[in-house]
Amino acid sequence: MKIVVDGFGGDNAPLSVIEGSALAVQELGVDIVITGEEKVIRQVAEQHHISLNKIEIVNTTDVIAVCDDPTSIMKEHAQSSMAVGMKLLADGQADAFVSAGSTGALVVGATMIVKRIKGIKRPTIATIIPCQNGCFMLADAGANLDCRPEMLLQFGLMGSIYMEQIINISRPRVTLVNVGAEETKGRELQLETYRLFQKSALNFMGNIEAREIPLGGADVVVADGFTGNVILKLTEGLAKFVMGGLKEMFLGSVKGKIAASLLMKDMKQFKKKMDYKEYGGAPLLGAAKPVIKAHGSSDAYAYKNAIRQAKAFVEKDVIGTIEQAIQKSKEA
Amino acid sequence: MKIVVDGFGGDNAPLSVIEGSALAVQELGVDIVITGEEKVIRQVAEQHHISLNKIEIVNTTDVIAVCDDPTSIMKEHAQSSMAVGMKLLADGQADAFVSAGSTGALVVGATMIVKRIKGIKRPTIATIIPCQNGCFMLADAGANLDCRPEMLLQFGLMGSIYMEQIINISRPRVTLVNVGAEETKGRELQLETYRLFQKSALNFMGNIEAREIPLGGADVVVADGFTGNVILKLTEGLAKFVMGGLKEMFLGSVKGKIAASLLMKDMKQFKKKMDYKEYGGAPLLGAAKPVIKAHGSSDAYAYKNAIRQAKAFVEKDVIGTIEQAIQKSKEA
Repeated sequence: MKIVVDGFGGDNAPLSVIEGSALAVQELGVDIVITGEEKVIRQVAEQHHISLNKIEIVNTTDVIAVCDDPTSIMKEHAQSSMAVGMKLLADGQADAFVSAGSTGALVVGATMIVKRIKGIKRPTIATIIPCQNGCFMLADAGANLDCRPEMLLQFGLMGSIYMEQIINISRPRVTLVNVGAEETKGRELQLETYRLFQKSALNFMGNIEAREIPLGGADVVVADGFTGNVILKLTEGLAKFVMGGLKEMFLGSVKGKIAASLLMKDMKQFKKKMDYKEYGGAPLLGAAKPVIKAHGSSDAYAYKNAIRQAKAFVEKDVIGTIEQAIQKSKEA
Repeated sequence: MKIVVDGFGGDNAPLSVIEGSALAVQELGVDIVITGEEKVIRQVAEQHHISLNKIEIVNTTDVIAVCDDPTSIMKEHAQSSMAVGMKLLADGQADAFVSAGSTGALVVGATMIVKRIKGIKRPTIATIIPCQNGCFMLADAGANLDCRPEMLLQFGLMGSIYMEQIINISRPRVTLVNVGAEETKGRELQLETYRLFQKSALNFMGNIEAREIPLGGADVVVADGFTGNVILKLTEGLAKFVMGGLKEMFLGSVKGKIAASLLMKDMKQFKKKMDYKEYGGAPLLGAAKPVIKAHGSSDAYAYKNAIRQAKAFVEKDVIGTIEQAIQKSKEA
């Protein structure tokens, strides 16, 4: 299996990309293609004594930045490390693509270069977020700010398949973010989406209030991309806020330092439980081939996990299952 | 000054209402009117040895529940403790109204019974939420799911006045919740609202990403009621999740218990900092007279603080200032 990794996406490129790719070659038995400026990649690898065994480099000199217009991936930045990686995927020269670069550009590229699965209206960025007793999938996390009910139904369907096949949750509990549990709650979008979900074959558990999300109330949390983006970022911000408060408490006094030494093991466990890196990246569900968005601040470990996720995505044929489910829902 | 309190709103009615009112009489020097079944109120007060000095009771036998249709406050539940309290306020028999009952019914009552300030399109539930280095006001927190740009502008204006006059923040930083900081981000609603804010006299700091909200990035956070409700409830859920994790860590082992005893004082401080009760309730900004929504699970202390807030609301003439500002913005 061959997985392309964008060599110049994210905050820690290209070092973390190279490190993570080398780890993936060793531990996961995959072949890697890194896109990006070959000279720089070889230099960094040499400086850090990282083996490039089973890692091919496809030379590209351009990079698309987070501040660039996402649609420029089709024109001005058509030769960027991200665009070239997606073309390799689209052309069948690789099985999956991983990037920690601009989310917007990745969504445009997934839609225009990799193309969509037949029948899918829009690809969704489906982020996996830790919560009490495990994790849940949030779809959409920001790719589609304005959504129609049919789009949200498809996000739920694709999220359910992913959680079942990759995270091994049987009959994932699908929910719709809303301001109340009752089916009469919400805006027109929620009212109509609720009806669509109810008629579907999914394990739809109804509306979920945001309060219940971190408490493990669902396996798949469906929302329009505006709401989903707020949920994702607020979770990050609150985690940072709380961790800051704890750090101050533990390091602010001698007593605190003693307490911290007593709780070292538990703290590490708690931190690991809350760590996005454990779950790899966010799949772009609905693209015709496996595309994984790694977190912008991914380190080598996060890259390795994103590549592991990409590998499972291919092996379990998630896309084939989505195709069949879409076909079936059309016949119904 | 006379403040009406809904005797049968919230989870801990009527005991916490009576206790909180008695505290307010003692500490704040206000007169209180409690609406609700007089016999029950007198019984509970006697059982718990609470003085009813300077507390008048207006007998009502009906209660509007959270599960009732909010508009029923105008018809079936027109004699409920909440409806009668709002009528006393509207008729000039009291200066402010506090209730921990159904938010929906309170919004309908504020609009239909108390009426709006002239020129205000919709009243907003403006919740005060603790954050790093203080607190911020979230408007709207769920009263108006569908909003127009002019409504959001008014929420920002009213929130700014409230934070300046009641929380003593000079030139409050007003922000708009969005998926990115740039003014080109968001849906049509955000794009147009951004332009309106820019043209206003407010201290508008631009868009805020949800990540920055708990980190103290703003004094007034403006959002449509759907998004605001998600922010409010997710904050509550994540706080509960983290507190649960800490409790487990501290109480799960002997080491943990020793650590907890070392950190007792800091933990209490942190908890107090995070406690909504410190800030009283959520004002219904835009209503023609002061209405405060207390948290559904308010205890006596929270009621006392909500009454203190209602008193400040009257004394500082927040409503007069809003009227003038609306008038001025029309002339501009």
